Amino acid sequence: MRAVDFAAFVDELATVSAAAILPFFRTAIGVDDKRKRGQFDPVTDADRAGEVAMRSLISRTFPEHGILGEEFGRERADATWVWTLDPIDGTKSFIAGIPAWGTLIGLMREGTPVYGMMHQPFIGERFTGDGAAARYRGPAGPRDLVVRPCPALSDAVLFTTSPLLFAEPDLEAFRRVEREAKLSRYGGDCYAYCMVAAGLIDLVIETGLDDHDIVPLIPIIEGAGGIVTNWEGGSAAKGGRVVAAGDRKLHEAALKLLNG
Amino acid sequence: MRAVDFAAFVDELATVSAAAILPFFRTAIGVDDKRKRGQFDPVTDADRAGEVAMRSLISRTFPEHGILGEEFGRERADATWVWTLDPIDGTKSFIAGIPAWGTLIGLMREGTPVYGMMHQPFIGERFTGDGAAARYRGPAGPRDLVVRPCPALSDAVLFTTSPLLFAEPDLEAFRRVEREAKLSRYGGDCYAYCMVAAGLIDLVIETGLDDHDIVPLIPIIEGAGGIVTNWEGGSAAKGGRVVAAGDRKLHEAALKLLNG
Repeated sequence: MRAVDFAAFVDELATVSAAAILPFFRTAIGVDDKRKRGQFDPVTDADRAGEVAMRSLISRTFPEHGILGEEFGRERADATWVWTLDPIDGTKSFIAGIPAWGTLIGLMREGTPVYGMMHQPFIGERFTGDGAAARYRGPAGPRDLVVRPCPALSDAVLFTTSPLLFAEPDLEAFRRVEREAKLSRYGGDCYAYCMVAAGLIDLVIETGLDDHDIVPLIPIIEGAGGIVTNWEGGSAAKGGRVVAAGDRKLHEAALKLLNG
Repeated sequence: MRAVDFAAFVDELATVSAAAILPFFRTAIGVDDKRKRGQFDPVTDADRAGEVAMRSLISRTFPEHGILGEEFGRERADATWVWTLDPIDGTKSFIAGIPAWGTLIGLMREGTPVYGMMHQPFIGERFTGDGAAARYRGPAGPRDLVVRPCPALSDAVLFTTSPLLFAEPDLEAFRRVEREAKLSRYGGDCYAYCMVAAGLIDLVIETGLDDHDIVPLIPIIEGAGGIVTNWEGGSAAKGGRVVAAGDRKLHEAALKLLNG
């Protein structure tokens, strides 16, 4: 099978996950503070319900596939095809009632991200990509996602989820880029990466990502003509410190500043 | 007339404004950097188009009413009934393609905010209030907005648009509150105030607001049972430094820390 043959199945995963998650959005929910990495990191019943729904559909349909999920860990991680699942990327937005979160569904073949979706079920929009092309469906109408040219950092709109998530010396490295950018914005989570793909912003820089946070977004950004790597310029598929850009020259300039 | 008699008219204003604004969302638009207060402050054609549409409808329907608008200034500001208009609150989210912006429409009678709406037309949700009650309509279904109890700062979720918008010594005052809060989040703009009204977050603290940024939100938060004042505890209707809370005890605690 080719990655693109899984597109309809990924739509189905998004639909079952949304049905599990949406009843919890903007209602009183049990928030469980696991204080991962010293930060307040709420995990909701919704997160768990969404992942259970997707895991169950994958296991029934493709019992030989692997799964890396945010809530319930790793199964068959050495399989040829491995799914990554993050039911609610942006849990802080979710519990605050702000619809800037998304469901991330990724597919890897032999360790390489080959298909990804970001689904925002409250708004009803889906961003997908397979590394060669990327598509949008939602209230703005269906269309291709294409990055915009922006070679110079002084013209770039930069996003990161929060400067509070950087530890030194990474914070100082981030600030070097931020000082040169035209505009720096906090928040966004998975939306920021999708907006790079949509040609609306230019750069996202983060640290401390898990694989399920970034694997689904790589084929979307690459499919739209952009580039995602770790801060060393290698594959971002394992998470960690990530830099995503719409323009390769901008990506190079950011890497140079990040590495001092 | 009572403030509530204008409810259907405010719906109409929101509808004409949305029709003017939405064609510009997530498309290439002319961004004009007026560098207000030394910050990058994009003003879009969409902002202007939305305000023109609303001003024209108000002037045709209530020629004796005053209007305070973000883009086109003040007319008849001493009238009994005065409208405040902010077509796109959260322009930075808007140009980045993230649907965390809203259209703010407020009505004052003799200088007191008596009715307000926050409309997010891409998602299709409206938050309204008249100081006595507050309502939501949108994908989550129609319902009353009611704040949640949260007397202690150590349990509170705090929002501000960006710490970069505070000048010293206000930044240090804000940090005193932030250090005591359970969770601090950046971004949100008008959404943060609506989420206080919806009982999903507890506290918003900002500086440098214009009247059109806050007037429409006051009747929503007060209608939901919350409180909004300036940092001195007086009326927030003129903007400036604002603190909004769902719980009066939390509001008191925040004021105390802000004032040293």
